Amino acid sequence: MPGTPEANRTAIIAGSGGLAAEVAAGLDAPIVAALEGFAPDGIAAETFRLERLIPFLDGLMDRGVTRVVFAGAVRRPALDPEAFDPLTARLVPRIAMAMRQGDDAALRELIAIFEDAGLAVAGLREVAPQLLPASGILAGRVTAADDADASRAAEVVATLGALDIGQGAVVAGGLTLAVETLPGTAAMLEFTAQSRSGRGGVLWKAPKPGQDLRIDLPAIGPDTIDQVAAAKLNGIAWRAGHAVLLDRERTMAAAEAAGLFLWSRPDD
Amino acid sequence: MPGTPEANRTAIIAGSGGLAAEVAAGLDAPIVAALEGFAPDGIAAETFRLERLIPFLDGLMDRGVTRVVFAGAVRRPALDPEAFDPLTARLVPRIAMAMRQGDDAALRELIAIFEDAGLAVAGLREVAPQLLPASGILAGRVTAADDADASRAAEVVATLGALDIGQGAVVAGGLTLAVETLPGTAAMLEFTAQSRSGRGGVLWKAPKPGQDLRIDLPAIGPDTIDQVAAAKLNGIAWRAGHAVLLDRERTMAAAEAAGLFLWSRPDD
Repeated sequence: MPGTPEANRTAIIAGSGGLAAEVAAGLDAPIVAALEGFAPDGIAAETFRLERLIPFLDGLMDRGVTRVVFAGAVRRPALDPEAFDPLTARLVPRIAMAMRQGDDAALRELIAIFEDAGLAVAGLREVAPQLLPASGILAGRVTAADDADASRAAEVVATLGALDIGQGAVVAGGLTLAVETLPGTAAMLEFTAQSRSGRGGVLWKAPKPGQDLRIDLPAIGPDTIDQVAAAKLNGIAWRAGHAVLLDRERTMAAAEAAGLFLWSRPDD
Repeated sequence: MPGTPEANRTAIIAGSGGLAAEVAAGLDAPIVAALEGFAPDGIAAETFRLERLIPFLDGLMDRGVTRVVFAGAVRRPALDPEAFDPLTARLVPRIAMAMRQGDDAALRELIAIFEDAGLAVAGLREVAPQLLPASGILAGRVTAADDADASRAAEVVATLGALDIGQGAVVAGGLTLAVETLPGTAAMLEFTAQSRSGRGGVLWKAPKPGQDLRIDLPAIGPDTIDQVAAAKLNGIAWRAGHAVLLDRERTMAAAEAAGLFLWSRPDD
């Protein structure tokens, strides 16, 4: 109810991982909710099912929520046809059609459904800008060869984005060792670790060109450091202002300890 | 020496695998040569080192060779700086610069060096057309969903080609599960096997757009069948007339036995 003390609250739609807790820490009394089966780390969350999305959104608005922000990774949930309420069921053809068009289309449609229900969907750049490092080298040292690899990888990701494929690539000495696809960054880095004999190179992360930046921003955290070290890369670079650095102090310390650079890289 | 019985011979530059033997079977008394360390299967080959390429090419011409054909996969060999002869050493800056520009540039430069030495470089389409199946379904059955996956994968490979990345992709239900990079097809399929939970989908193979078709055509053989079966795909499709089907009878029988389709697919 607008005008009550609870009005203008923010709801965090939490995915798995620690991002939701970090976003919540910067907000005043947010509601934290997560899809059943995708509980976030480090913070309690109420759960909802996609099959009952409309009643869930109505419930948020009844509690004074005017704005939602997506925080964290969600995989496509399995849907139980018997669990739908009638209003959400009506959205199924729309969601199914969007899913067939790929991840970007599915996420854009999800945002549209929230907005149609009367909620503003904000991005992390607006709600939690402190989590998105501006340009700068945050750990280690970057060489000219690393810069060239990052530039090449950025070109690969930009080109792939037109195909709605991944947000990442691994380039070493100008050669593309791996490209991120559906299985994600960790799987790509494990592939790199297993399939290469040398060392060096860069993990590059960036949103897909044309992606809605209010959802599914790339994220780098302590786990990424371990995976990049195992893949024998020199460091991690990302498009400045367009990726989340999780657990910043710990991630930076882990990068220094592993001899890896962390580079929030300005556009070429 | 032109005019002698030995004139107009063809030399097969063999990579590893069985392709060179299949090419040789269709030719009259070819010379078969392989880089040291990359011996082909099923046929004897003389060896040469890249550091002594010019004397090797001169030797071929002395024996009446006028035409060479590349047959099989060659990885970048390690070069021993002490092993160079003076003429080949002069080519090193040219080769090194091409290598830095990626695989396609390196292979184009290699072809140019053969041609500069006075040898014609022919493609498999000219020398061994019987190894490149024309359009048709060679094993199993293809559904509309498989066709859509193949079409999508063809689009992925065509787009990646502009970046000189791989010749293959795996698409299932419209989703890109894997993209071929430096480690090659077998590594991509192993990644797919390890990272997926479902089944279905297509392995697509095609040359990179703009690639010189006289070298490094995609090849499908019995090993590919095993790898595709382990990745739980429905089958293999490739750009008709632009990929080699190795060990045809055995590969087709293996595909049928594994319930996989083999599809030499015309362009969209």
